[in-house]
Amino acid sequence: MKKRIGVLLSGCGVQDGTEIHEAVLLLLAIDRAGAEACCYAPNAPQRVVVNHFTGEESGGERRNILVESARIARGKIRSIGELKASNVDALILPGGFGAAKNLSDFAFRRANCTVHSEVGRILREMHAAGKPLGFVCIAPALAARVLGEEHPKLTIGNDPATADALRGMGAEHIECGATEIVEDPGRKIVSTPAYMLGTGIAEVAEGIEKLVKRVVALA
Amino acid sequence: MKKRIGVLLSGCGVQDGTEIHEAVLLLLAIDRAGAEACCYAPNAPQRVVVNHFTGEESGGERRNILVESARIARGKIRSIGELKASNVDALILPGGFGAAKNLSDFAFRRANCTVHSEVGRILREMHAAGKPLGFVCIAPALAARVLGEEHPKLTIGNDPATADALRGMGAEHIECGATEIVEDPGRKIVSTPAYMLGTGIAEVAEGIEKLVKRVVALA
Repeated sequence: MKKRIGVLLSGCGVQDGTEIHEAVLLLLAIDRAGAEACCYAPNAPQRVVVNHFTGEESGGERRNILVESARIARGKIRSIGELKASNVDALILPGGFGAAKNLSDFAFRRANCTVHSEVGRILREMHAAGKPLGFVCIAPALAARVLGEEHPKLTIGNDPATADALRGMGAEHIECGATEIVEDPGRKIVSTPAYMLGTGIAEVAEGIEKLVKRVVALA
Repeated sequence: MKKRIGVLLSGCGVQDGTEIHEAVLLLLAIDRAGAEACCYAPNAPQRVVVNHFTGEESGGERRNILVESARIARGKIRSIGELKASNVDALILPGGFGAAKNLSDFAFRRANCTVHSEVGRILREMHAAGKPLGFVCIAPALAARVLGEEHPKLTIGNDPATADALRGMGAEHIECGATEIVEDPGRKIVSTPAYMLGTGIAEVAEGIEKLVKRVVALA
């Protein structure tokens, strides 16, 4: 039986959803690790739609997080509401502004952010079940919010204000490069900065591969 | 100076645009090969928008090929109209229905298809300049249409009707697996079936890595 690794998406595109490279690199690393990727996303409207060519918000447009995430998952995706901790052996969250705008409001409220209720529920359930969690790029903000009382060790790049926001939610921030990971071994939480720091896709791939290997090993 | 490898996108999502995994795997392999990926797409409306969760056409919705492709390119993309053969050392087309619906009408007209005028122009210019071309998944149909008079050797999976359509446009079809490539060495044309045959992303990545290595070596 292959290990089942949940991948929680937040749309399709770095500015308003999942960072596409990070998500695809996760799926690749999971397949190469001999595990099975199981994609999930909230069935809810995106907070914004951004024109990725101009970088500007696309005013009148409305898109659904699950429907757009299905582009990355090639249609093989389910609503986060259907996910129970018993369904998967681990759960990984790629980055992109979707993590900070759709799965949470970290982009707007920083240390005062709230997390999408179903996302918060599954993170707590997985952690309580002793299952490993992986957080890529900006996604460690959600770990800080949900599990901050345990003071988890996380990495989120080198922007001082962002690191401070994590500390403000109770996390311990440890800086590392895009090709590296930070592991909180006692809590089975692994994170990597990816495009918070990475300047090229090969660099980001290296950190993501290391994260997936550790998460799969811990699962 | 890094070799500049053009990547021609057709939207963002397998059903109505670029196959996302194939595009990201191309960008990864190009970076790992020490070359620079330069993304382009037509600045034109998509022929359709497909809801990738349900698989059904999303009737009233309108999206632009360049704007959606920019999601995969993280905003670093230009209109195909700006691309000259002198700008890049090679050009690669990933698959997805966008190649057969936006860059051409192969999905509807098969051997009678036509190719987007700017796409046809750049393929002819690149080929005339002796620069290598790479075609992934369904994209070899465009090579058959544009360069069919030269009877290029191409691979496009194992569906007999699709292979027949390529032959109908003048190409020689050579079947190969998803982890393999077909090279027409005299014409510097390389192709790989990717998700025409591949059942998993690691398998598809293997074929795409081989294709990129050959295209970069030929450039």
